[in-house]
Amino acid sequence: MKRFVILGTGMMGSAMAFPLADRGHELRLVGTELDREIIAGLERDGVHAKLGDRLPENLRFFQLENLAEALAGADGVVLGVSSAGVEWSARTLAPFLEAATEPLPLLMIAKGLRLEGGKVRVLPEALAHALPERARARVSPVAVAGPCIAGELSKRAPTCVVFTSASEPALEFWKAQVEAPYYHVWTSLDVVGVEVCAALKNAYAMGIALATGLNEARGGKPGSIGLHNLESAIFAQSIFEMARVVELAGGERESVFWLPGVGDLDVTTNGGRTGRFGKLLGLGIGRDAAIERMQGATLECLEILAVMRAIVAEFERRGALGRTELPLLRELCRIALDSAPVDLPLDRFFSRRPG
Amino acid sequence: MKRFVILGTGMMGSAMAFPLADRGHELRLVGTELDREIIAGLERDGVHAKLGDRLPENLRFFQLENLAEALAGADGVVLGVSSAGVEWSARTLAPFLEAATEPLPLLMIAKGLRLEGGKVRVLPEALAHALPERARARVSPVAVAGPCIAGELSKRAPTCVVFTSASEPALEFWKAQVEAPYYHVWTSLDVVGVEVCAALKNAYAMGIALATGLNEARGGKPGSIGLHNLESAIFAQSIFEMARVVELAGGERESVFWLPGVGDLDVTTNGGRTGRFGKLLGLGIGRDAAIERMQGATLECLEILAVMRAIVAEFERRGALGRTELPLLRELCRIALDSAPVDLPLDRFFSRRPG
Repeated sequence: MKRFVILGTGMMGSAMAFPLADRGHELRLVGTELDREIIAGLERDGVHAKLGDRLPENLRFFQLENLAEALAGADGVVLGVSSAGVEWSARTLAPFLEAATEPLPLLMIAKGLRLEGGKVRVLPEALAHALPERARARVSPVAVAGPCIAGELSKRAPTCVVFTSASEPALEFWKAQVEAPYYHVWTSLDVVGVEVCAALKNAYAMGIALATGLNEARGGKPGSIGLHNLESAIFAQSIFEMARVVELAGGERESVFWLPGVGDLDVTTNGGRTGRFGKLLGLGIGRDAAIERMQGATLECLEILAVMRAIVAEFERRGALGRTELPLLRELCRIALDSAPVDLPLDRFFSRRPG
Repeated sequence: MKRFVILGTGMMGSAMAFPLADRGHELRLVGTELDREIIAGLERDGVHAKLGDRLPENLRFFQLENLAEALAGADGVVLGVSSAGVEWSARTLAPFLEAATEPLPLLMIAKGLRLEGGKVRVLPEALAHALPERARARVSPVAVAGPCIAGELSKRAPTCVVFTSASEPALEFWKAQVEAPYYHVWTSLDVVGVEVCAALKNAYAMGIALATGLNEARGGKPGSIGLHNLESAIFAQSIFEMARVVELAGGERESVFWLPGVGDLDVTTNGGRTGRFGKLLGLGIGRDAAIERMQGATLECLEILAVMRAIVAEFERRGALGRTELPLLRELCRIALDSAPVDLPLDRFFSRRPG
């Protein structure tokens, strides 16, 4: 039995409390500034306001100002913040890491990419990069990828995920601590490949959901006849393009072809906010109206499309990417960032010839 | 403009009439013994009883006894029969092929596999093999794969498919004749890889649909929270295993990672009879009760699982396949062929180590 801190108590960070508590660990949940009400609710009745589930018994809850107390004697930290919070968590954890006498195991659930100085950085690298040097030596961050809807994990529904890190001992540590009868963990040393998949899936899931909106816009009903042929062609092109981006970023194509790529893309198309947003865009109401209708929901797809537009430009500048490659990704950028009408370039799909 | 015969007027064979007619070809639809009522209905009012759609204008309809009349002067044949009808069509077409003075282009839509004398045969090979030698020299069959629900093609919904053949001229012929603004055709010389995907997708789509039944069996409602984590893990394992089977059969793994594999598997999980059958099995009512509830619907998944069980045994006999490989496929055989209760061996998924 160990003592773990979960820092960042959104849906996925908090859902991680289930396998960890079921494995008998002592858990301390610390909210960020964004989680004040969630923590207050948990202190009141143990129910997580966003998940709608009662968290396991015997957890302790902390507001951010009590982080030091929560971290005392911790055997590891689960970083529950989203992509936008990664550098913040580096700054927040730095003093503790510098003061620590031993390395601190760190498990990250954020998905995203950075382009820094012409270099594509996955989030475990971005976190390490944002730490002062002495603190950096204290962490080997492990990231989680693969198909996992938080609201299912919090119901202990069977879930298969991939932990990725450059450090084999770090991978084995977390797998041994978290694996539960319903939470199955595989490991991968291909951090770049796995994390690029995890980041891209939100962009492509938005693209797949366009078909639902297009179908509705032309009077079609949901059902087994719709625009599923189109939807699955977009799905296939998404996998085709993911493999190309992984390759360009220096990862292994094979990572796309199991849980991190096809598995996570598939689950992300099953409803959720990315799917609803993609459907709205497919209806043709335009980017701004679609964002308004989402009523402030976090849209990871917009964040990843914006960074991917910059990354694509960088790959092109280097001569690594042809101008006609990644036609779907480019079109998704136009639709979601520039409010262009949906016009999928199907005839340019599945082409290996850089132009 | 050319003259084509569609032999076998089930849903997919008949749906092919749309792009062909829209390209201005003269079309003659010939029913098999199974299609007598479909042809009678088409002669009456032009509506296809199973598709529920009115076929394009100016088609001619024939019962099987008038096949010779239909074939007179034909520039090619679209073979609309299912897997079970492939050898029958070889026998039926043989006299015409032997009498022909020129090769007859042939486009096949059937999906399936054969194990003959220890050799895995894809259907274009099975067809050629079933022809007398002189007739065999007259055909270079081209097969169609990729995500295409017939009821969407018959509504001219955007569709992306792959034509495959060992003959490049044969591929180019059919692509040039069939491609339409809504029917996009790619070509592949990897007949084995593409056809193994096309055959396996029904088995694995049944496996993915198990999750819907399991969810309902434990009181879950359809929606964005269900057993989607499990469903997507099964999806990912399906792709992982498909790639292994393609490799063992001598095809190219890459064929799994675009339209023929991920694309077609994805579309097949969108409802349809395979999905309904898989869901019934997931509910735990047992194989026989599930078959009864399907009321005589053709279940391609049962046919392909039966042949895959024999193929797996053959690969093992040769020492090419480990006993713990393809754990999902083996479990699907137990569930659907032996009426075993659903017990997915998740911990044996995603393992590359033959045991």
